[in-house]
Order: sequence, then structure tokens, then C-alpha cells
Amino acid sequence: MANLLVDKRDQIFVLKEMLEIDRLCSFPRYASHAGYEMVLNEAHTFANTELSPTAVDGDQQGCLYDPKTKAVTFPQSFHKPYQKFCEGGWLTMCDSPDVGGDGFPSAVGTAVSEVFYACGFYIYGAAELTHAAAKVIEAYGSEEQKKSYMTKLFAGEWMGTMCLTEPDAGSEVGAVQTVATRNGDGSYAITGTKIFITAGEHDLAGNIIHMVLARVAGDPPGTKGLSLFIVPKFLPDGVGNAGERNDVYCTGIEHKMGLHGLVTCTMAFGDSGKCTGYLLGEQGKGMAEMFHMMNEQRLLVGVEGLSFSTSAFMNAVDYTKSRVQGLSVYPGADKQKSVAIINHPDVKRMLLTMKAYVEGCRSLAYFTSSCMDNAGVADGADRARWQGLVELLTPIVKAYITDNAWTVTALAMQCAGGYGYCSDYPFERLARDCKVTTIFEGTNGIQAMDLMFRKILGNNRVNFNNLLEMIDQTIEKGAADAEISVYAAIVKRAREGLARIVEEMAASSAAGNSLDLYAKTSPFLEAMGDVLLGWLHLWQLTVANPKLQGFIENKSEDEIAKILNKNKNAAFYDGKVLGARFFIGTLLMNTFGKFEQIRSGAAPVISIGEKSFTG
Amino acid sequence: MANLLVDKRDQIFVLKEMLEIDRLCSFPRYASHAGYEMVLNEAHTFANTELSPTAVDGDQQGCLYDPKTKAVTFPQSFHKPYQKFCEGGWLTMCDSPDVGGDGFPSAVGTAVSEVFYACGFYIYGAAELTHAAAKVIEAYGSEEQKKSYMTKLFAGEWMGTMCLTEPDAGSEVGAVQTVATRNGDGSYAITGTKIFITAGEHDLAGNIIHMVLARVAGDPPGTKGLSLFIVPKFLPDGVGNAGERNDVYCTGIEHKMGLHGLVTCTMAFGDSGKCTGYLLGEQGKGMAEMFHMMNEQRLLVGVEGLSFSTSAFMNAVDYTKSRVQGLSVYPGADKQKSVAIINHPDVKRMLLTMKAYVEGCRSLAYFTSSCMDNAGVADGADRARWQGLVELLTPIVKAYITDNAWTVTALAMQCAGGYGYCSDYPFERLARDCKVTTIFEGTNGIQAMDLMFRKILGNNRVNFNNLLEMIDQTIEKGAADAEISVYAAIVKRAREGLARIVEEMAASSAAGNSLDLYAKTSPFLEAMGDVLLGWLHLWQLTVANPKLQGFIENKSEDEIAKILNKNKNAAFYDGKVLGARFFIGTLLMNTFGKFEQIRSGAAPVISIGEKSFTG
Repeated sequence: MANLLVDKRDQIFVLKEMLEIDRLCSFPRYASHAGYEMVLNEAHTFANTELSPTAVDGDQQGCLYDPKTKAVTFPQSFHKPYQKFCEGGWLTMCDSPDVGGDGFPSAVGTAVSEVFYACGFYIYGAAELTHAAAKVIEAYGSEEQKKSYMTKLFAGEWMGTMCLTEPDAGSEVGAVQTVATRNGDGSYAITGTKIFITAGEHDLAGNIIHMVLARVAGDPPGTKGLSLFIVPKFLPDGVGNAGERNDVYCTGIEHKMGLHGLVTCTMAFGDSGKCTGYLLGEQGKGMAEMFHMMNEQRLLVGVEGLSFSTSAFMNAVDYTKSRVQGLSVYPGADKQKSVAIINHPDVKRMLLTMKAYVEGCRSLAYFTSSCMDNAGVADGADRARWQGLVELLTPIVKAYITDNAWTVTALAMQCAGGYGYCSDYPFERLARDCKVTTIFEGTNGIQAMDLMFRKILGNNRVNFNNLLEMIDQTIEKGAADAEISVYAAIVKRAREGLARIVEEMAASSAAGNSLDLYAKTSPFLEAMGDVLLGWLHLWQLTVANPKLQGFIENKSEDEIAKILNKNKNAAFYDGKVLGARFFIGTLLMNTFGKFEQIRSGAAPVISIGEKSFTG
Repeated sequence: MANLLVDKRDQIFVLKEMLEIDRLCSFPRYASHAGYEMVLNEAHTFANTELSPTAVDGDQQGCLYDPKTKAVTFPQSFHKPYQKFCEGGWLTMCDSPDVGGDGFPSAVGTAVSEVFYACGFYIYGAAELTHAAAKVIEAYGSEEQKKSYMTKLFAGEWMGTMCLTEPDAGSEVGAVQTVATRNGDGSYAITGTKIFITAGEHDLAGNIIHMVLARVAGDPPGTKGLSLFIVPKFLPDGVGNAGERNDVYCTGIEHKMGLHGLVTCTMAFGDSGKCTGYLLGEQGKGMAEMFHMMNEQRLLVGVEGLSFSTSAFMNAVDYTKSRVQGLSVYPGADKQKSVAIINHPDVKRMLLTMKAYVEGCRSLAYFTSSCMDNAGVADGADRARWQGLVELLTPIVKAYITDNAWTVTALAMQCAGGYGYCSDYPFERLARDCKVTTIFEGTNGIQAMDLMFRKILGNNRVNFNNLLEMIDQTIEKGAADAEISVYAAIVKRAREGLARIVEEMAASSAAGNSLDLYAKTSPFLEAMGDVLLGWLHLWQLTVANPKLQGFIENKSEDEIAKILNKNKNAAFYDGKVLGARFFIGTLLMNTFGKFEQIRSGAAPVISIGEKSFTG
């Protein structure tokens, strides 16, 4: 059967041949985990056999809400796979053995996440939130809180949520109105309504632990007055079990474009005045603590976008290889016999575009995770450098990958024509599912502001310049190889264009003209994402091209065709090289237009008033 | 209540101030129709009051299929509006009085279509197919066929379909396997299966007249052997009524991403060997006759894409004006009070991007229709010139507008954040609905090939050069106006870039190197669409800017702000001018990158083999 999820060969290429993850395994922290290929294999098997069947139920049955009992049920078919997922210890594969984890590098965890999201394992999103809740308790919780909650969350036995958004506090988190009032026994009474809560209520786990942003009564307005609270659905009974029902209920669920298999709840805290919560960490430090969860989630949302794209791409390859329609336009082709549509240039162009984005975005996501891994084994300035790169790249992973997912899934639908629009194939579902990734965990517009103002200008371009240094090393390596140098030159031109824009923006900002910059954050993020993909494709070219040459050097065209036809590894490197050449030599040309766009001024955007949008 | 459908003021601007439709009314053919503004007003009223309520039923209830009776039912709420639509004579507003029409210019008809599609009047698609069926019978039918079918179709009393696609004949129409065998009485027995048939079966009209592409037994393979047949659901009884049930049945309906309110059927012809059809026009001329329908439909699909975009845009303006969230970043703004999000630069950028595309695409669609109108009152070479422009522009109207609809509807969702993804608002429905427009009536990839090979290279660039001549006239006019000349210069640069690419492509083609061109058709169509929008925005600028200046010339900033705040017309021209300046001065910059992309060669696309797409 064709692989319709993720190209495992490319995953291994990025991890092993490009990022050289094996080097990490020389550090004691990861020493016992040279076996990551085996784990990735297991993830693929588990995804294909146990998890993939949940995709259709998740989309078509969806999650049901009963207004009488205020209960939410997942499709019945979700329960067993989730059980097996927990038993497999997948949730803690990258965590410390101290908390029951396996200590794998994050880059490997990201590769596994890509597989699990791609197979329509909707509850993986809820599981990842559970993991994030456990991590924030690990970081800020008291010993008692760790004992009561963390262990059960890491095991997936209880699940977790992240409760920020309210009807009038979306992108403006500081407007949160949920209040926490001291009960006198160290606990707090929580009152308020949270919306858009992923897996806020369901029947998959014995308890749900809400991580709730609220304001202690009397604390100042804005984000500075926010604290983080643990609000369990069932209060722990003191001996490790779920006890008394807490006054937190689901009052409705959203009807969404997609992601039907992962419920989105409105949660009422303390409607009967009896919702108990426990302060986590310090009062007034809620935002910083929540961002401990949030940063991890933003990277994962990028991976989600990647997963939907990659599955759409794999399905498109499969469909176009089997759908026969139309004559070949290649010279010398049979003019009587129709061919599989993968042989039509416009279809190849769509597939190669998807491939270039998917594989470029994969390397971006894995690279960012490997920066986390490198930070984990580095010291001092080196550690700060890796950590800085993670911070810089997080908004790009989140926004650039998910924006492209909308384009890639549409191209996949287009490859399948009318069938792409019908639910017999997964194309339309993947497009519907992917859209939310541009919105949740901070809209992509919020990411773009974060990138420019906090991550680049906010630290005087230190992280940005560190990144340029890495890019320059790759360009230098590429320039030294005669077969690649033309692509190195294009990436150099792109890198210089980007650096120039950043310099101009820094100058504007220093001169107090930052208003214009606000109109350019999103186009800038897009252009920077393009340049990063150009760099990463060049990096891949420096690795893959010599290997391809090893197969085809000094061979005739006919011999090459035979080799590519028979040898899967040679065909993989051929695809790799052509994908990279297409991205840098063709798609990256668009970026030079985007640079012109960014530098063209923002006067109409800044000056238009709301009345001039007529109707 | 806010207008959430189409900006009527802009429709009138394009029709009256830009295209000067009133000039057409000096010709006898259109002389009695200076009252088109009134008709457009009526269309808006009818859409808002009668039609808009069908949108939610259409999407959420959808059309139901009963496998026992093989019947399809539309939502109950569709019947009355459809009745009123027929009674209003909307279907024939642009047809000749000879067939009961009102003889309005097509450009006016296009404006009305935009309104009817935008309000979620799903059956308008079926109605337009009915109109197309009537037109093809008008053009090719015998007097008896006109009497039996045409009149009832034009009245909407009976409805029509277009049956081309089969399981193995999608983009490759010539592969059609449906067979017509002579019965001996002048009629034919039809046998075959058609799929993706819009409104192939339903309960909205007393009869359904299928226009079926089939091959007379013994005729050659390929498109040359195809003929067009009239296959009624009920055979006419000879005295003007629906008589005996014909052997054509719906055997299933598609479950689609969107457009739930317009059923897509699989139709079985002659499963019991008793399906009667009647040859329309000449045997073996089926393709040419079908294209008589198809060309009109392709323009209408472009208008559909426009409608979904325009409604998404209007809803986004409305939402962002009322949603309060976050502080203003403008200097001097109140740092305590949150503002409506339309005041945030990144939101304005999204809105202005939508506005520039929507209004640019509107002018493209109306201009193309006005070319048809001009052809209708011109003679000889002049007529051929207008007709040639329609042919040239048809694939661009179809593909460029619908591709942009995917982008515009996504931007609208983004403006509404989480709410954009939920079905309480129309955003997500509009995105789902619009996607099919890039696929049906010939995928956008097919349109791109049609544009380059048939419409540009196929006629030695005659039509293309005629278009350039019109563009040059606008550039000349713009260059002469000091306030606009900078935009005229950018459009000139874009026009020259496009012309250069076409010259290079013609040279490639003449040298027998057309294989590379096949890899570039879609990016070329996109770039050409951009340049057209640049031209049309420049044209609009030459009209709107002097009018805006009339309001604000020599006024202080404060006075201007007051004028724009109070005077709706001034605010409209201000928005018009800023939208055009943003498109030409900012968005069109991207096109210079696209030119580089197109000229960068197509080697990876052409050379990659299917094995190199691994998985």
C-alpha cells in the first residue's frame, strides 16, 4: 500500500544526513538513543494501523455535546487508540527519565509528531496540551502539585487544557476578566467564562486539568495582573484519584470548518459559585508561566500545519500516479494512449511546488527542534545562541508553515480535480483541518508582530545576526561546489535582500518611525520564511547532490533513467536535488518581488480610515 | 443593517464611471435600458430579503438523496425564492425581447449575477445552467426543439444541465463513452454514466433537460466523434407539458467540501435501455456546441469566485469595525482604551488586500462582459476585436478570480480569528464554497493552457496585442496626470515585463520548444492577471482621483478628515484611490518576482520522473 502520511525517507534524511542528529547521541543526555530510526518506524506502523482509521470518524461523526448533562463524547473508535498511545509512552518520549520519559531529542519527537498529526489522530492535539500542562507544573508547581497532577498528566491518564481566551479577550490577553478570590484555605474560587478551549470537556480520560489564566481579585488590569491556576474537573481525593466534581462545566461546543475530531468548548467556571482553583507558581506571573506552555504549542501548531500539508502531498502523489487522463505532451510520446496525470508538466509543477514547501518546512521545523536539543547540551554563550535561535524561529515555524499549508492543501485538491473537492478522498478534509492552524495559539498576524518587534528589533538583531552567520556558512560551502554554486548565489542574493530590509527597519525603528513597520510585519515574516527555506534547501543540496552524483556520475541518460527507476535511494536523492533546485531556482524568485513589495512603503495601509471601507 | 453582500457603490462606479455603460444605451439594442441602476437596486433588495435566508439552509441542510426513489430534494426554503426569481424574469434580463428577454447589457447582468451568487442563492448556479441550455438550443435547435424546450427553459419553468464528465473522461473530454444509437424514428437511445452533474436531479422544476455529450455508435474516437443530445427527464407530451418519464436517473450524489446547497449528481442514462435523446444541431459538432454553453459558464464561474470573495470581504469589514480588541499603535492614541480591530495596521493591510483584489477582479469581470456588449453593437474588424478580447480574457476571468477567491476568503477568516473558523459567521462557508470554482467548468490548469496555447500563441498574439494597445492608452492617460504618473510608470513596467515574456514564449514555440511552456502556463496566467488588475486599477485611478480631489483639494488634514467622515461619496473615492494605489504601488511589486520565476526555466519540472516522488 502506498504511504499516504509522511515520507519517512525524507524524515531520516533531515534528521540523520542533514542535521546529523547522531552527533547529539555522543552527549550523555541522549546517549542511549541512537535507536531513533526504530522509534520512527514504530510511529509509522502505529499511525498506519491503529490511528489512521480514526480520521474519518473524527471528521464525519465529530464530537457530540449533550446540553442536559453538559458532557462531550469523542467518537467511540478514539478510545482504544488513545489507550495504546498512552501505553506506548509516546507522550513522554522526549522527557527526562526523572518524570518517566525516554529522553529522545526534540527533533525526533517532532518527526513523530508529524506522523501522528498526519494520520488524523485528532486527539494528539489534546494529548500535546496535556503534555504542555505537565511541563508547566514540572517547571512551576509545588511538590504536592507535581505529585497530584504532573505524573498523571505525563502518563495521559488525566488530560490537560490551556484556558486563556474569553469572549472579549482573544488576541488581547490582558483583557481577561476571569477572577480568582481567596478561599482562606490556600485555594481560590474561580469565576469566569473561557471560550475556544480545546478538549475542555470529553470522555477520554478520568480527569481534566485546566490551566486557567485569571486575575486575583484586586490585582491590576492588563497582563501584569494575571496569574495561572490549576482547576481540575474532579478535585484530587488526596490518595491519587479523581474525587469531588468541581464547578467547571462545558456550556457549548463550536461548529467548525474542520478539526471536527477535536472538540472546542466554552467553559463556565463557578456558575454555582463553587469552582476551586489552585495558584500555580507566583501570583502575577501567569503570563510568563503560560508562555512556557505557549512556546511549545506554537512550534507544535507549525508541525500540525506541516502534517496536513505532507499528508495532502503524499495523497496527491498517489492520486496522480494512478489517475489516467490525457495524452503526454512530451516529444516522442504515444499519441494514442493516455497517461497517468503525474506526467503532465502542470501537474508536476504542482507536485514539485508542494514537495519543495513540504520538505523545506519539514527541515525548518526539525532544525528549530534541533536548536532546542543543542541548547540542552551546550553551555553559556553557546546555549544562549541556540536558545535565541529557537525564540527567533518559533513565530516563523508557527505562521509560515501554517500559511503555506493552506496553499499546499489547495494544490493537492487541484491535482485531484473534482474528486479533490469530495469527501471520498482526504484532500478537502486536510484543507479544512489545516485552516485553524493559522489562527489558534496566536493568529499568524500576532506571530508576525512577535517576530519583528520582540524577536528581531527587541534584542538588537543578535539572534537574527547569529542566524545570518549560519546561512553564510552554508552559502560558502555551496559556492565551493561547482554544481551547486549557482544556487548558492541565488540564496546569497536573497539573504542580502532580507538583511537589507532588516537594517532599514531597525533604522526606522531607531528613528521612532515604527508605525509603518506595523503594516509590513506579515509580508516580512513571509519573505523571511522564504529565505530560510532557500537556505535550508541549499543545505540539503550540499548533502544530497554529492550522493546523487555517486549514483549517476559519468552515466548516459539511458543508464541514469534505469538507475532512477530501479534504485529507490537514487530516486530519492534525485527528487531531493530537483526539489531544492526548483525551490531556489524558481520559487525563490518570487521573493525578490516580495522584497520590493515590503520596501514600497505602507502609506495607503496607514492612512486609510474605516469610513473609506464602504459597502 | 450593514451591507454584507456586494458594495453597490463600487458596482455603479465600475459600470457607469469607469466602463461608461451609458454610452451603450445610445445604441438601439440597449436604448430602453438606461434604467440599469434601478434594476441593480432591485437585485440587492431581492437578494437581501428573499434570497439571503437560503444560505444557511443550503449549507447546513443541503440537498438530500433518497436511494429508493432516486429523488433529490432541495431544502424546502428554496422553492418560494426560486419561484419569485422566475417571476421576476431575472434569468432573461440580458436576452433578446424575441425570446422574452429584457435586453440589458451583459455587464449589467454580470453585476446582478455577482449579487445573486454572493447571497448564498445556491440554485442560481442551476438557473444559470438552465439559461445556458436555453441559449444553446436557441443557437442550434430546430424550430420544434425551440418550441418544446427553449421557452420553458428561459422561463425557468423547466431547468437544464450540462452533462460532459464521466468517470474516465474529466479533463480529457474526448474519452467520453456514452453512446447514442439511432432508434429509427429520428430519436436516439442513450446509454452511459455521467458524473459531477450539477442539479442533475431535484424537485425544483417540473422537468429537467439534460444537454448530453455522447458518441453516435460508430463515430470516431476523440472529441471529433462527439455530438450533443437533448435528454429530458420527462419526454414532452406534444402539447407543451412534461409527459412520460425517461430512463435517466440519479444514482448518487457527492458529499462535498462546500456548495452543499447545489446538488452534484451521478446520472445513469439508459440503465433499462429506454433512455430517449434528441440530436441537437449537427452530428459530430457536439464539442463546438457544448463550448457555446461552456464559454458563458466559465465567465460565470469567475463571477461566482468574485461573489464569494466580495461577500467575505464585506463581512470582514463589518466584523473588524465592531470587534474591539487591543490598543491602537498610532502615535497619540489613547493607551487605556482598546479599539475596533479595523484600526490595527495588519488588519487594515488584510482588508486593503482583499479590497484591491475584489475591486480589481470586479472590474475585470465587468470589463470582459462589456467587451461582449461592445461586440454586440460593433461591425467587422471592430466586432472581431471585441470578440477576440472576450476569448482572450475568459480563461483569466475563470482562473485568476477563482484562485484569488481562495486567498481572499482565507484573509477574511483571518480577520475574524477563531470566529472566522466557526459556522456562526459565513466566513468558513464562503471559503469552502469558493474552492470548487477553481475546479469545475475546466480546472484552472486547463484554463492556463487554453490562455497560452489557444488564446495567445494560437492566434499569433493578435488579441494579446489589441489588449496591450488598450493598456497603453490608459498608461498614457495616467502618465499625463502628475498625481498618478508614478503609478502609470509601475503599470508600464509590468506591461513591458509581460510583453517580453510573451515574446520569449512565442519565440520558444516558433522554435519548436513548447515543452518548457507547459510547465509555465499557470504562473503565466497568474502574472497576466496581476498585470490586468494593475491596468484596471490605473484606469480606475484616472477616474476616481480627480473626483476625490474635487472634495479635498486645498483642504487641511483636519478638514479632509471631516469630509471623509461625513461625505459617503468622498469616502468612497478615497477608498477607491487608496485601494488602487495599494494594488499598483505595493501588491504589483510581487509580480516582478513572478516574472523572474517564469523566466527562470522549467528544467526540474520537465525532468522529474514519477519515481523521484518518493514516499
